[in-house]
Amino acid sequence: MTKHLISSADLTRADVEAILDTAASMHDVQRREVKKLPTLRGRTIINFFFEDSTRTRSSFEIAGKWMSADTINLSAKGSSTSKGESLRDSVQTINAMAVDALVIRHNQSGACQQVAGWVNASVINAGDGTHEHPTQALLDAYTLRSRIGELDGKHVVIVGDLTHSRVFRSNVITLMTLGARVTVVAPPTLMPSGIGSWSATDGFATSWDFDEVLSGEDRPDAVMMLRVQRERMSGGYFPTPREYTVGYGLTRPRLATLLQRNPDVLVMHPGPMNRGLEISADAADAPSSVILDQVSSGLAVRMAVLYHLLAGEGSAA
Amino acid sequence: MTKHLISSADLTRADVEAILDTAASMHDVQRREVKKLPTLRGRTIINFFFEDSTRTRSSFEIAGKWMSADTINLSAKGSSTSKGESLRDSVQTINAMAVDALVIRHNQSGACQQVAGWVNASVINAGDGTHEHPTQALLDAYTLRSRIGELDGKHVVIVGDLTHSRVFRSNVITLMTLGARVTVVAPPTLMPSGIGSWSATDGFATSWDFDEVLSGEDRPDAVMMLRVQRERMSGGYFPTPREYTVGYGLTRPRLATLLQRNPDVLVMHPGPMNRGLEISADAADAPSSVILDQVSSGLAVRMAVLYHLLAGEGSAA
Amino acid sequence: MTKHLISSADLTRADVEAILDTAASMHDVQRREVKKLPTLRGRTIINFFFEDSTRTRSSFEIAGKWMSADTINLSAKGSSTSKGESLRDSVQTINAMAVDALVIRHNQSGACQQVAGWVNASVINAGDGTHEHPTQALLDAYTLRSRIGELDGKHVVIVGDLTHSRVFRSNVITLMTLGARVTVVAPPTLMPSGIGSWSATDGFATSWDFDEVLSGEDRPDAVMMLRVQRERMSGGYFPTPREYTVGYGLTRPRLATLLQRNPDVLVMHPGPMNRGLEISADAADAPSSVILDQVSSGLAVRMAVLYHLLAGEGSAA
Repeated sequence: MTKHLISSADLTRADVEAILDTAASMHDVQRREVKKLPTLRGRTIINFFFEDSTRTRSSFEIAGKWMSADTINLSAKGSSTSKGESLRDSVQTINAMAVDALVIRHNQSGACQQVAGWVNASVINAGDGTHEHPTQALLDAYTLRSRIGELDGKHVVIVGDLTHSRVFRSNVITLMTLGARVTVVAPPTLMPSGIGSWSATDGFATSWDFDEVLSGEDRPDAVMMLRVQRERMSGGYFPTPREYTVGYGLTRPRLATLLQRNPDVLVMHPGPMNRGLEISADAADAPSSVILDQVSSGLAVRMAVLYHLLAGEGSAA
Repeated sequence: MTKHLISSADLTRADVEAILDTAASMHDVQRREVKKLPTLRGRTIINFFFEDSTRTRSSFEIAGKWMSADTINLSAKGSSTSKGESLRDSVQTINAMAVDALVIRHNQSGACQQVAGWVNASVINAGDGTHEHPTQALLDAYTLRSRIGELDGKHVVIVGDLTHSRVFRSNVITLMTLGARVTVVAPPTLMPSGIGSWSATDGFATSWDFDEVLSGEDRPDAVMMLRVQRERMSGGYFPTPREYTVGYGLTRPRLATLLQRNPDVLVMHPGPMNRGLEISADAADAPSSVILDQVSSGLAVRMAVLYHLLAGEGSAA
Repeated sequence: MTKHLISSADLTRADVEAILDTAASMHDVQRREVKKLPTLRGRTIINFFFEDSTRTRSSFEIAGKWMSADTINLSAKGSSTSKGESLRDSVQTINAMAVDALVIRHNQSGACQQVAGWVNASVINAGDGTHEHPTQALLDAYTLRSRIGELDGKHVVIVGDLTHSRVFRSNVITLMTLGARVTVVAPPTLMPSGIGSWSATDGFATSWDFDEVLSGEDRPDAVMMLRVQRERMSGGYFPTPREYTVGYGLTRPRLATLLQRNPDVLVMHPGPMNRGLEISADAADAPSSVILDQVSSGLAVRMAVLYHLLAGEGSAA
């Protein structure tokens, strides 16, 4: 494992497994009354968020605090960036304060890779444009593994706006690194143009027809619904919210179909959800839903990532 | 005492007295050079503020930090809520991170009660719409008690925009729980419609005439001036700021009248003040004013509330 | 040294030297793996920023956290100030919470001086209007001293929008306190009107001609470029950005001239930079540039200032 976590592709199967194993012991901390480890005392973690976020930012912040690190939040609003400073100057300035990690969310794909080339601190990609969100993929893998065991040969279906989804990109990489099979479903307008080449990969399939995938031979072990960015609505990607739901929403009848084929199927969503659009309230709140487990796993996985990147020499996976 | 603090009505007289007694020992911490107790080490407190606040938010944040808790601030701006997530999903997401307390301010009356039904964490109401603000009432009671002793039979006058005031609602409950008598004064347009039924209660009175109350038989031990929300100005509740001051402001002549009748009368305001509108600078800065004591009490009272809700089994009042 | 740091003029030469000496030992902390001193445990530092800032605010926040203080950030947005509360009431409210230091940035010159008259806490000026920014001057002096030794007789050239620059004002005072000579360069429209009287001081000179200063007899040991506030652009202070650069930018040819005369010349900028306007990318990234050292020094100097103001009786310089 390198000093940064930029792309899910940076992680070998051994790396991912080491992180998930560490996460399992970190998860135990959440069940304690006193949630505090001395591991990162005297280390400084900057959450530098150029895009808004509640769950990812607070997940990293709590993860750092529970490990006794000093955590500092910076946002683009009110920062030097809003005064016209370049990204490079902004991050090099913070880096010059001898901080240990920069957790970065940015609206430009590739921004975190660039930043890693400019600083000494460890860079953790907390979502860059439509590119990647590797800790999301790790927390999804952790959630799946803790529910259905090793992912070898398991079938995960990912549904939604693939073109603009960093969650999808990182998840496909990490799930397949762990030996899962992945089918991705999207309307033609939201299917990434380059995806044809991926389809050559063993265990990867694409479809425009959610219902066909649900009733196909390869029954799903989990269905991951992606958030529809409401700001895409006006982009002509699909006619109306209602039509999106009809074609690609996890509605009550679709959940029933799923459950009929596999009573242990898992329903996932990275949040925040648009209830009634990409996922019905029934599905979100069903016993099959592990959406809040994903949040809880996220904290454990981020503690594990911080541990592997920052907790000294002997810590590399 | 239950695990949440949603309404002042949740607290029995014994509960209130236990909190105020704890607050008194917490107040001593403020006089120390090293302000740090180990009490809440390893506990996590989320300040989830859907409305802006300086004093309440920083009061809870300092209270938590002095007790060694991890504190995290979230605001509605830049949160998933601003991306259309429901309140329920937002708070359940944060709750899934195994946090210990959610301190919530929200513009909807009743929001905190709802949240308490959705989460495992302790919920503390830091002001919900025009409903309640129980820690404000506790800090006001603490301030009064530390200046004029037990509140049994004492007379407190509350003046201002009662219709929209959560401070008024919580204060009436807590003051009367402690045996004080309360007279509330407002222009007819700002007197809550349901208040007639309260008036049946022993020790509670209403009036439209501030001067009559000031010179009435029942001399005030304290006068609490409520903030005029400038955004109400255009609501037709009163003709002009100047007319409000003439009828309901604590002006210099009114302060003189008060002091003549009771040299030990206390002047209170929850802040932020509109000097020259509901309170004159003379009154705000008079020796009778305990407005800054209220702030200082607020910190002690919030430490006490966190202690009673979070510091383990033996802590319930 | 007094309990506040409002103006660079508050500091005697002995005070400045004591702070810089302390900063040197604080700087060593940045090179440690565990960056944590127990010095300010149980002390509370409020960063009260009425203007946006990334580097100054995070520098103070990290400085406080590394010394184990509790640090709280408040901004004008979302504060009671935005609800019409006066500055005095806002800071007295925070002060009533028994905090130890208020680090204040405000858009009004003189605001910090006023605040110091209203509160018990130590007040640190983190930039007030166009008045002063004393920790910036200290960090610049620290950076210079660590590169070129004692400043007696050294020649520092400061270039840019002097009229609106608090960095310039504090730097001239501190540099001259340490025995340096200072030449300030600005277009006539951005030369402060009262500067004529300063010119009487030994070791202080003004010029409208950057090139003349660069090639003059008194060769510069350092050149400090000030940020052009883009919001001044429309103020008629200079015709176009391009003309500003032609007359007053540190361009590649000017850097060449400087280096020819003094290969050890230092290039400084308080940031955030407008690359291509007041400083070329060549100059910003040249080996002569100590711009990132300034940031690193800033952290050490702020730790030293907090130490001298807050770390107990024996700490006054």
